Amino acid sequence: MGEERSLFLLLDLSGTFIFAISGAVAAKERNLDLFGILAISFVVACGGGIVRDVCIGAIPPAGLANWNYLAAVVAAALTTIVGYRQVRRFRNPVLLFDAIGLGLFAVSGAQKALSYGHNAEVAVLLGVLTAVGGGVVRDVLLVRVPLILQREIYASAALVGAVIQVACERLGVAKPWTPWVAMFICVGLRLMSLRFKWHLPTFGDRSKRKISSDP
Amino acid sequence: MGEERSLFLLLDLSGTFIFAISGAVAAKERNLDLFGILAISFVVACGGGIVRDVCIGAIPPAGLANWNYLAAVVAAALTTIVGYRQVRRFRNPVLLFDAIGLGLFAVSGAQKALSYGHNAEVAVLLGVLTAVGGGVVRDVLLVRVPLILQREIYASAALVGAVIQVACERLGVAKPWTPWVAMFICVGLRLMSLRFKWHLPTFGDRSKRKISSDP
Amino acid sequence: MGEERSLFLLLDLSGTFIFAISGAVAAKERNLDLFGILAISFVVACGGGIVRDVCIGAIPPAGLANWNYLAAVVAAALTTIVGYRQVRRFRNPVLLFDAIGLGLFAVSGAQKALSYGHNAEVAVLLGVLTAVGGGVVRDVLLVRVPLILQREIYASAALVGAVIQVACERLGVAKPWTPWVAMFICVGLRLMSLRFKWHLPTFGDRSKRKISSDP
Repeated sequence: MGEERSLFLLLDLSGTFIFAISGAVAAKERNLDLFGILAISFVVACGGGIVRDVCIGAIPPAGLANWNYLAAVVAAALTTIVGYRQVRRFRNPVLLFDAIGLGLFAVSGAQKALSYGHNAEVAVLLGVLTAVGGGVVRDVLLVRVPLILQREIYASAALVGAVIQVACERLGVAKPWTPWVAMFICVGLRLMSLRFKWHLPTFGDRSKRKISSDP
Repeated sequence: MGEERSLFLLLDLSGTFIFAISGAVAAKERNLDLFGILAISFVVACGGGIVRDVCIGAIPPAGLANWNYLAAVVAAALTTIVGYRQVRRFRNPVLLFDAIGLGLFAVSGAQKALSYGHNAEVAVLLGVLTAVGGGVVRDVLLVRVPLILQREIYASAALVGAVIQVACERLGVAKPWTPWVAMFICVGLRLMSLRFKWHLPTFGDRSKRKISSDP
Repeated sequence: MGEERSLFLLLDLSGTFIFAISGAVAAKERNLDLFGILAISFVVACGGGIVRDVCIGAIPPAGLANWNYLAAVVAAALTTIVGYRQVRRFRNPVLLFDAIGLGLFAVSGAQKALSYGHNAEVAVLLGVLTAVGGGVVRDVLLVRVPLILQREIYASAALVGAVIQVACERLGVAKPWTPWVAMFICVGLRLMSLRFKWHLPTFGDRSKRKISSDP
């Protein structure tokens, strides 16, 4: 049990670090100052989790009370600032790190809700919210069209990851590696949808098919 | 008592369905994909109620834990997708359904806060918040100027509905049909303000009277 | 103890009044109607505090349950409407009142978290959040680039104020005038950064140094 908890703390901290990098890159590209980079990183990395903790009654939220999260954010922001050249070698670092954070948080968010005794629906919905919440706030603050509104598969990938984790737990077939599989599928789905331009059906008039771009 | 509870569950679910339609229409007009439509519908329909539940200590929030809400959202989104032509016959379906949802949520939100033992001020403020919260988030996510900032009567209509409901409860004159009357007045006020261009006074310089339009 | 509580209630209500003025001025400049001005004022003044109270488990949040806050907001909005000419004599009233509110809320927010028995990290983070939360929401609703993303020292000033207050409390050297000193340093830092264009380092490419302006 203690081991399982450490596993999910590890998942959660990894997600925090990775999401914080995506936030720091986005903030740096907007030329924010040191504190602006830290603030955006913190919101992206911990925002979704704080909302989740408030909804499941985990007061005070871990993102505020446990210094590990703050340390992960600071480390990620400094890593980004110092190693920006390396980070920028990836074709689109915000999208890449965002995808990995999405998978980690979908799984760890769902599991945390389960471990507080809530039902499967709460767990799945809060897994998705933890995963997409921080990124939505990042995009709103930076006045970009939220990723969740783009045509590629985004929140649906988080949904798949959360459902796999919750279903395995509830059916009693969860193994120590279940969360990694769920996470891997979620990240893979997201990255492949970017690579191969997969998307869910839309229903608009053909004449105005194009999604409106930046505001 | 049980009957009263069912009445407010009915009001709340109706508001959820109606607001979800307004969200689905707005999302569809932006050509979002299937999941994007579901996500926006859910946020519009359940966002305000989740914030209200967190503020009154109803953990986990009903919008997350009670599958009826999710079912209402899915039903509304599918209805909108399948019956889009019928929905579009209304001159401005987002505004119409938004107005009805506003009335339903102002009343049911205020009543839920009262039933958790909070005072009249909490009930009125949370009634208004439940009613306007989801729509504000919808407009922020879709990068539109929030309806609450338009010149017509919007949040003030929600305030009137919530005050009528809370006052009748507190003065002990509430009848089974009180919530319907409160809701009817709120919706009527909103729709008539749209129809007849009613608005509250502004205080700007005459020279720059026009409200700034879309971003 | 009771005296200390009154001190922080006073700080909190002053911050509410001052932030509400900054919200009312911003809303009035956008020509919102009476209720729009009240709504924006309320969100700016009480939004951050409500999030803080939810995070520390103070249910229902004081901003909703204690009529003093609502009264302070209404008074501030009416003051702004009636005395707009006087208020406009300040070169930039939104920035000025925002700075004072920042200092008041950084200190009172941190102290409230401490008084609910949370640790120093929670207190500092929630002090900053209380201070910057309302202003961020104001700017998002009015579709402006949030102040926190500008180059001047903003959230960092709130951080300094919250850290001074929490450190003095924790080291047992807090005096009755400690909060005023913490607040004064925070406001001074913010105003001087505006006056002398102080800013924290950025790390962008020199070629694209300019922060992108309004959307």
